Amino acid sequence: MFQHSSKLQYSVKVDKPDPQFAMLLQQAIGGVEGEIRVAMQYFFQAMGARGDDRIRDLLMSTAMEELSHIEMLGHAVALNLEGAPVSYQEESARDPIINAILGGANPRHLLSSGLSAMPVNANGVPFDMSHVYATGNLAADMMANVAAESGGRVLASRLYNWTDDKGMKDLLSFLIARDTYHQQQWLAVIEELGGFEKNLPIPNSTPEAHETTEHSYYYLNTLTDKKAPEGRWNTGPSLDGRAAYS
Amino acid sequence: MFQHSSKLQYSVKVDKPDPQFAMLLQQAIGGVEGEIRVAMQYFFQAMGARGDDRIRDLLMSTAMEELSHIEMLGHAVALNLEGAPVSYQEESARDPIINAILGGANPRHLLSSGLSAMPVNANGVPFDMSHVYATGNLAADMMANVAAESGGRVLASRLYNWTDDKGMKDLLSFLIARDTYHQQQWLAVIEELGGFEKNLPIPNSTPEAHETTEHSYYYLNTLTDKKAPEGRWNTGPSLDGRAAYS
Amino acid sequence: MFQHSSKLQYSVKVDKPDPQFAMLLQQAIGGVEGEIRVAMQYFFQAMGARGDDRIRDLLMSTAMEELSHIEMLGHAVALNLEGAPVSYQEESARDPIINAILGGANPRHLLSSGLSAMPVNANGVPFDMSHVYATGNLAADMMANVAAESGGRVLASRLYNWTDDKGMKDLLSFLIARDTYHQQQWLAVIEELGGFEKNLPIPNSTPEAHETTEHSYYYLNTLTDKKAPEGRWNTGPSLDGRAAYS
Amino acid sequence: MFQHSSKLQYSVKVDKPDPQFAMLLQQAIGGVEGEIRVAMQYFFQAMGARGDDRIRDLLMSTAMEELSHIEMLGHAVALNLEGAPVSYQEESARDPIINAILGGANPRHLLSSGLSAMPVNANGVPFDMSHVYATGNLAADMMANVAAESGGRVLASRLYNWTDDKGMKDLLSFLIARDTYHQQQWLAVIEELGGFEKNLPIPNSTPEAHETTEHSYYYLNTLTDKKAPEGRWNTGPSLDGRAAYS
Amino acid sequence: MFQHSSKLQYSVKVDKPDPQFAMLLQQAIGGVEGEIRVAMQYFFQAMGARGDDRIRDLLMSTAMEELSHIEMLGHAVALNLEGAPVSYQEESARDPIINAILGGANPRHLLSSGLSAMPVNANGVPFDMSHVYATGNLAADMMANVAAESGGRVLASRLYNWTDDKGMKDLLSFLIARDTYHQQQWLAVIEELGGFEKNLPIPNSTPEAHETTEHSYYYLNTLTDKKAPEGRWNTGPSLDGRAAYS
Amino acid sequence: MFQHSSKLQYSVKVDKPDPQFAMLLQQAIGGVEGEIRVAMQYFFQAMGARGDDRIRDLLMSTAMEELSHIEMLGHAVALNLEGAPVSYQEESARDPIINAILGGANPRHLLSSGLSAMPVNANGVPFDMSHVYATGNLAADMMANVAAESGGRVLASRLYNWTDDKGMKDLLSFLIARDTYHQQQWLAVIEELGGFEKNLPIPNSTPEAHETTEHSYYYLNTLTDKKAPEGRWNTGPSLDGRAAYS
Ligand SMILES: [Ca+2]
Ligand SMILES: [Ca+2]
Ligand SMILES: [Ca+2]
Ligand SMILES: [Ca+2]
Ligand SMILES: [Ca+2]
Ligand SMILES: [Ca+2]
Repeated sequence: MFQHSSKLQYSVKVDKPDPQFAMLLQQAIGGVEGEIRVAMQYFFQAMGARGDDRIRDLLMSTAMEELSHIEMLGHAVALNLEGAPVSYQEESARDPIINAILGGANPRHLLSSGLSAMPVNANGVPFDMSHVYATGNLAADMMANVAAESGGRVLASRLYNWTDDKGMKDLLSFLIARDTYHQQQWLAVIEELGGFEKNLPIPNSTPEAHETTEHSYYYLNTLTDKKAPEGRWNTGPSLDGRAAYS
Repeated sequence: MFQHSSKLQYSVKVDKPDPQFAMLLQQAIGGVEGEIRVAMQYFFQAMGARGDDRIRDLLMSTAMEELSHIEMLGHAVALNLEGAPVSYQEESARDPIINAILGGANPRHLLSSGLSAMPVNANGVPFDMSHVYATGNLAADMMANVAAESGGRVLASRLYNWTDDKGMKDLLSFLIARDTYHQQQWLAVIEELGGFEKNLPIPNSTPEAHETTEHSYYYLNTLTDKKAPEGRWNTGPSLDGRAAYS
Repeated sequence: MFQHSSKLQYSVKVDKPDPQFAMLLQQAIGGVEGEIRVAMQYFFQAMGARGDDRIRDLLMSTAMEELSHIEMLGHAVALNLEGAPVSYQEESARDPIINAILGGANPRHLLSSGLSAMPVNANGVPFDMSHVYATGNLAADMMANVAAESGGRVLASRLYNWTDDKGMKDLLSFLIARDTYHQQQWLAVIEELGGFEKNLPIPNSTPEAHETTEHSYYYLNTLTDKKAPEGRWNTGPSLDGRAAYS
Repeated sequence: MFQHSSKLQYSVKVDKPDPQFAMLLQQAIGGVEGEIRVAMQYFFQAMGARGDDRIRDLLMSTAMEELSHIEMLGHAVALNLEGAPVSYQEESARDPIINAILGGANPRHLLSSGLSAMPVNANGVPFDMSHVYATGNLAADMMANVAAESGGRVLASRLYNWTDDKGMKDLLSFLIARDTYHQQQWLAVIEELGGFEKNLPIPNSTPEAHETTEHSYYYLNTLTDKKAPEGRWNTGPSLDGRAAYS
Repeated sequence: MFQHSSKLQYSVKVDKPDPQFAMLLQQAIGGVEGEIRVAMQYFFQAMGARGDDRIRDLLMSTAMEELSHIEMLGHAVALNLEGAPVSYQEESARDPIINAILGGANPRHLLSSGLSAMPVNANGVPFDMSHVYATGNLAADMMANVAAESGGRVLASRLYNWTDDKGMKDLLSFLIARDTYHQQQWLAVIEELGGFEKNLPIPNSTPEAHETTEHSYYYLNTLTDKKAPEGRWNTGPSLDGRAAYS
Repeated sequence: MFQHSSKLQYSVKVDKPDPQFAMLLQQAIGGVEGEIRVAMQYFFQAMGARGDDRIRDLLMSTAMEELSHIEMLGHAVALNLEGAPVSYQEESARDPIINAILGGANPRHLLSSGLSAMPVNANGVPFDMSHVYATGNLAADMMANVAAESGGRVLASRLYNWTDDKGMKDLLSFLIARDTYHQQQWLAVIEELGGFEKNLPIPNSTPEAHETTEHSYYYLNTLTDKKAPEGRWNTGPSLDGRAAYS
């Protein structure tokens, strides 16, 4: 069962409302790099997790935290929209700065949501649940989670650079920190499961007989006017410890 | 902040797993009549609710309950998929009953989710968040909520009829009961706000000067070979008490 | 069969074209609060309506009116785009006002539609038909219709506030009036069917034996640090007249 | 303005209801080859048509006919669903034929629509309006219309082959006939505009100076182990009469 | 098998980066008129092509060219985003020109893609593969291809008018030229197959007995206050040479 | 520039056509775990890759291989649909096995594509390009790629188990092998960049001052009735070597 406490996970302040920044923040709510995605991904992975109870708990517990991140960002969007003009004023039409601000804002914050957050990205495209990756294979799901938290931290870092609002920078520095942890949290699950060497290839339950292993360790160059790029991927022992790359 | 207790809101049992019914249950999870929709709709409405704190609390509290309904249905899907064949057996190919069962199941329960619930509907179409209706106008949002709970109870009633599994019937009878309450819960908010007479037309904040009221109380017949259907909609005083219908 | 008359339902005038407002008007055409949605919703509900012919006629007749609203708004979009620049002029690049106007306009009005309306919302997201709610249960459908007309009137009121163009204000005041009527039209159908007391819970055909009625009349508080909000929803007799709330 | 007459454009009869065929018919309603698409495409093209009033009238008039095709197909779906089982019967679970029928039917016809048509395709995917092609360029739009009517007639022909229901075959033979005409209707508009020779390349308003015409008349072979296929596309005078192909 | 050469099909230069134009170019990459669509459409049509090998080769060969167009446009987007501000500078907030530029740019170019192209249109809506039209009927597919190339050339011509960047004009004049050819290339396939007279109605394999041919050659007027528009579509011999229009 | 050779990357044989398996294979073409996704993801990442040319080449080269995988799977789908009934035969309606086969097949393979592959998943839902993850940050993109190849290999392994067709098993064992390599190929890029220790947290360019590092290394337990699950994620030194977990 789910419960709610009225305290936010971290305080949310906005020094100067900015409807443009409200629009940008939407990417962190409803974008593929955003919090709805990880909240729902961890929730559905938890429901599908069998075996080790600790991992199921870890997934469900973190899903709660991500829902709490949606909540904080929802507050941040509303605070940035505070005082946004909701009706026409003749003089504003002549003021290019106001027009520019409106030009960069999401008009649906004004028309559709009544100045609050929506489950859409920075282009106003609604989040769709096909981005909830949950295969029932733990290692595959962990990689999807690390990928999601990496994209999330890239986004939060760019949002941090984009604003000079102290309140917003503070909130984003917290979200950046939690993304730091969550990347490592999911990689730590891989380590608990024996590390990459034991888990690769994912899924490690596929019998070797189901694989034409002579095709499992070479780079295929399909470039007609370039030699194969050289690097770790075609030199040395394979990362799963079973062969050498070529 | 969000928290999770390991107890389910109501017990979930399946007497005989049925992969076809797992597919049908998906409509109650990821369909437009489903639980993801109401959970997210109440959550986003709560974040946008200003004014009366009680309503904001009511919305957030109910969002938690709906998340708990997703959780129960997720269990129900997994239990119905228990024991579903995950690999080919020669004899099964000759058994039309098994083929029929598979024919009616969602193949992605086998291929993509590892026998657990997905955030999709009974056709496998992922839920998309454009169905989260939250306008910032309380009366409009309440009507959207009653509509959602009505569609939800229609669906749960049809699912109840469709199965003869006692466990599933029991779970559905609980969800039907909660939908009964939630319909009235949201209508009770309208009553708290003064009832339909005071709230109609929604939004009741639109100045009368913004409306060509001579067009506000008549039925327009666009049928070329039928007379206007007669009924309450074109007879008697208007429901907002301001005029007579024609 | 469908037919078309060349007269608009109401006259459409634009005093001063405004490509930004053309973009905002798109929400009323292709948004979830818009006219495509209600037109298609009433059309599909009409095709599914069995029993009382009057309701089927009411639905089909109103579907026609909503198609006529798309038509008027399509004219309004085209008139607002009249004279929009379709090619680059060096001086304009230096003029922040023109840039701001373009910044706020939908570039696809220029690139894709040739300065006319598209079936998209104010973010340029195309309408998708999953928003056509039609369950085959009349009371549930009526609630969905009242919800749609409420969202529609909220939107039209906001658009009215957003523009100072007299022609546009006149058109919007007409659409506001029709939304006023349509809300009550669909509620009047509920009254014809016996009112909420007789129709709740929706659907009223579910046998009481299919419902664990001991769970049908209480508010569930899931808030860990707040008492249950008190109001009509947990006090007094239930709206369906069968129990008392708690 | 839009109006409705209660007569269908053509009679709709079903000799023996078939829920599987109801599902297939959905492709003709909500598929990209279906009637919602052409109805909306012609409607939006009509709203964007400038210049020759005859073409605007042709588009709007044909949009009405396509709406009437949705209506007939909606009837056909409902008739094919008549008598479909809406509740479980123990014996049916043992009857592979019934299971197979249900396996091939759209479960949402039972769960979501109450045995009537939905705006979705044969996979249950809702139609989305991005398929409404309307560029504001008449020749480009006509080609999109011929393409739509070609896809539509391919589909109707396949549906005709799929059923042995006389009523359904009769309806489909009518829709096939109208698709025959509509293909030629839109090609006839090209002829009215001067034929392909005058209209190619589309749009014919692009100044020759905006085109590197030395790249306008040759086939580019990108196949590494095959010679360029020879045919009309790289032999003889160009179809626009301005050059020779190579 | 697919291969890649590092040479672009045509040189791509941008004289002065312009983030607004980067956003507009996205329509040519990920719009329904764009290059992803034709690349994938020709690829899937090639995979479904049976019979004449030349057509299959033509389709696959042209699919390669369209992938190469995506590649060129991807370069063009990146070049237009070069030097775009990725962090806040206090003075910029006061500079309406910079704000206007940002107002018109896609914020996800800054937040999500790291200043490079995305598979989305000019509104930021991702391309979806339902626009890959491939019926397995060659004539129907050719009409879809001509329609796609017509929409593409309309778009490229509008983009050409929109920019005054010499590099961009040069690239667009090349794409316009290739669209010119591709329109005729696909029409040439129709000619190889016997021309419209032999191919109409599409598909020409439908037995005449499957069509109520008395409905195949007349225009249906559904306009209640206008006479049928007169033109080639209701006068003279039918384009398939089998009847006269009426 | 892109080029095509007529040789497939690996031979594709089907011993016994099976329309149900054709439907399942669609997941590997148009599912989120499928080949269109990785092909487009690597292509767009390549276009955004700056800096090390080897990585750009690796991305583009692998994109070509993935396009070649679509091609092989497209052949496999067509071969599995060979001989599928395209018209009704009275006796078949009585044969539950045939009905079951059809019940499990995608009807659009018969109605829409003419018995060939479509860019959709096993539920018939079209692929949409929002699943092309390309952030412009190399490490984040590599994690997304490993996640994609992990999901892909899970799917291919399940498809392998699902069929007993020797030809299909052979093709899948090849695809499984290439997924094995590609997982390690992308992890090898991380190693080239200095390994996880140097790359974590992703992105490693975010200044430490932008992060509230006191929140970067602890697990947050939100479970109300369970202790924090213990494991590598809250014990020992952090994976980035900068702190200890708690
Ligand atoms: Ca987070
Ligand atoms: Ca519920
Ligand atoms: Ca309306
Ligand atoms: Ca038609
Ligand atoms: Ca092209
Ligand atoms: Ca692959």
